[in-house]
Amino acid sequence: MKINIAGAATTKFGELWRRSPRDLIKEAANNALDQAKMKPFAVEAVFVGNMLSSSLGNQDHLGAFFAEELGMPVAAMKIEGACASGGLAVHSAVMAIQSGLYETVLVLGVEKMTDHKPEEVAQMLMGAGTDAEREAGATFPGLYAIMARCHMQKYGTTEEDMAQVAVKNHYHASLNSHAQFVFPVTLEKVMKSPKVADPLKLLDCSPITDGAAAVILTKIKNNEVNIIASAVATDTLGLSEREDLTGLKAVRVASQKAYQMAGISPKEIDVAEVHDCFTIAEIMAMEDLGFFEKGKAARAITSGKTKLGGSGPIINTSGGLKACGHPVGATGVKQIVEIYNQLKGIAGRKQVEGAKIGLTHNVGGSGATAVVHILKKD
Amino acid sequence: MKINIAGAATTKFGELWRRSPRDLIKEAANNALDQAKMKPFAVEAVFVGNMLSSSLGNQDHLGAFFAEELGMPVAAMKIEGACASGGLAVHSAVMAIQSGLYETVLVLGVEKMTDHKPEEVAQMLMGAGTDAEREAGATFPGLYAIMARCHMQKYGTTEEDMAQVAVKNHYHASLNSHAQFVFPVTLEKVMKSPKVADPLKLLDCSPITDGAAAVILTKIKNNEVNIIASAVATDTLGLSEREDLTGLKAVRVASQKAYQMAGISPKEIDVAEVHDCFTIAEIMAMEDLGFFEKGKAARAITSGKTKLGGSGPIINTSGGLKACGHPVGATGVKQIVEIYNQLKGIAGRKQVEGAKIGLTHNVGGSGATAVVHILKKD
Repeated sequence: MKINIAGAATTKFGELWRRSPRDLIKEAANNALDQAKMKPFAVEAVFVGNMLSSSLGNQDHLGAFFAEELGMPVAAMKIEGACASGGLAVHSAVMAIQSGLYETVLVLGVEKMTDHKPEEVAQMLMGAGTDAEREAGATFPGLYAIMARCHMQKYGTTEEDMAQVAVKNHYHASLNSHAQFVFPVTLEKVMKSPKVADPLKLLDCSPITDGAAAVILTKIKNNEVNIIASAVATDTLGLSEREDLTGLKAVRVASQKAYQMAGISPKEIDVAEVHDCFTIAEIMAMEDLGFFEKGKAARAITSGKTKLGGSGPIINTSGGLKACGHPVGATGVKQIVEIYNQLKGIAGRKQVEGAKIGLTHNVGGSGATAVVHILKKD
Repeated sequence: MKINIAGAATTKFGELWRRSPRDLIKEAANNALDQAKMKPFAVEAVFVGNMLSSSLGNQDHLGAFFAEELGMPVAAMKIEGACASGGLAVHSAVMAIQSGLYETVLVLGVEKMTDHKPEEVAQMLMGAGTDAEREAGATFPGLYAIMARCHMQKYGTTEEDMAQVAVKNHYHASLNSHAQFVFPVTLEKVMKSPKVADPLKLLDCSPITDGAAAVILTKIKNNEVNIIASAVATDTLGLSEREDLTGLKAVRVASQKAYQMAGISPKEIDVAEVHDCFTIAEIMAMEDLGFFEKGKAARAITSGKTKLGGSGPIINTSGGLKACGHPVGATGVKQIVEIYNQLKGIAGRKQVEGAKIGLTHNVGGSGATAVVHILKKD
């Protein structure tokens, strides 16, 4: 597989009260088109990653809606898989090109979350969980707190280890003008932040965010960055049915498939954007993706290996979901934008020197959906 | 393009208060698997067509949810494009197979609508319209009533012409044990039914329905029915921006693309399932799909050409959305099931003798999305 990325852009992420989803996708899409030196009529299909437009905004039919706004009366659809909606939209776009039905397609990811009360948003997000979890009053921080406890018990992972993920990702975000939180945090600040779901504290959690991202994929060679693998796997929706709670099986299955498709090993990844909805999720991702042995990721992160300037792989140069922000449907698309920028060498102050192969890891719900992409510079 | 349909099934359509979406998709999927003589592990990806699970049920993450229920821990996602969600899910599945990434995939369509107040459902359905339409208090019957008026003015179409569509489709549904309305209606009964949005009356409108449908697509030859074309087009979301209101441009564009892909002309279609959300929509579809000249479809329908036993093409043998029912996300998938049954020769009392080529036509909103598939018997 070799699918060219012709252009890629995100809006600023944050609390964007004055901007509509339409406005956000226009900015992202037009910047991606400019970068690709393409006109709207070059686009033959539009794939939209979004989770909450229906439940929060009573806005369905996003595919046709955005296609009209962008002047593209072409095939268009919304793809949804909870917080993995963006990654699934990229996967759909990859299939569209590989199928031969379309030559050039646009992937949009968007979410507008901060116009609603956080309690309402949290309730809607639990639409990604099971009936039993909802009935029991579980929240996503609560579900990830259970996984954190299991990881702590089995591998001796500490609250400080998790806090280090936040420190690293806030540092990266401080170099990213598009990030929601552009301020660094200290270990002490994370450790002293209020408890959300013990052992997870406020600064262990990704925020509620508005934002959009756009990527143009094409069969034709436009520049030197390509998607060379795209894989998806699913697992049980609820935690109670899983074999093990110290990692995500869907991530292991999807990433193994992706490595095989790309013909590479995890050791060859220079830079990755991973789904750190909570700090424990980044620790688990490091292990499930094969970057570090099971139980050894926390130490590697604490030692600085995954931070800019470390021995690598360098993780979440954008700031990740944690500090760049997590506009749900946009996240999986934004991850592709960041890795594209890294491989193109246009990532600015957060550039990983000489990065040639990158990976994105997008997760839905508490791990029922996993989407992994691998990108390579020619 | 030649994608084999290995199995296809629907549940009974209707007010199924005792059944959950999970229960409905299991019945449809297991029947489709039985027909294909396949075990769940043969399925490599799952595509779910659904519109309202999020806004009406706070159930997102349907892809992973259903994949788990069916024992398929594979790639899974929900596809949404208002009332065209089912057709778009089939289009996605077609791309999945054509891409070479998957060999055998399952398409599910499902909607559970009757557990909610009709007013609430009607409001949620307007999520497919524009902000202006919603703010103006427009409903879908109202939007189609505008199109009906335009068609009446320009082509002399009458209320009786529209009523004849209902009479035909109720007759077909009376031969279909899975239909929501298994009773025939007379022209008089339709004409005397209460006005919903003048000139559309109650019996000009499709109902609110629960139901599910499943189709298994595969690269491997399993039997003699294949999808030979799959095309999608979009138009403006709102009516006010369209060039003409006596037909749907997206349908003309998508169907022309599909005929070209299949290498056939509209004259070769023996049987078709079209999106008759309102009776006027079937009249417009006959013209937009090229079955009859513009302005001449009403006469053809009234003369019985499109009714079982007519000279053809025979339209909506299932009873259509009008009488078989319209569980939104299931509709586009159910259309494939009906045409599959017709081409296999297993459509029972509603069989079109010798049917070799069939078409499905699925529309989103008031016509912003159109999906056309062509099926052929080897």
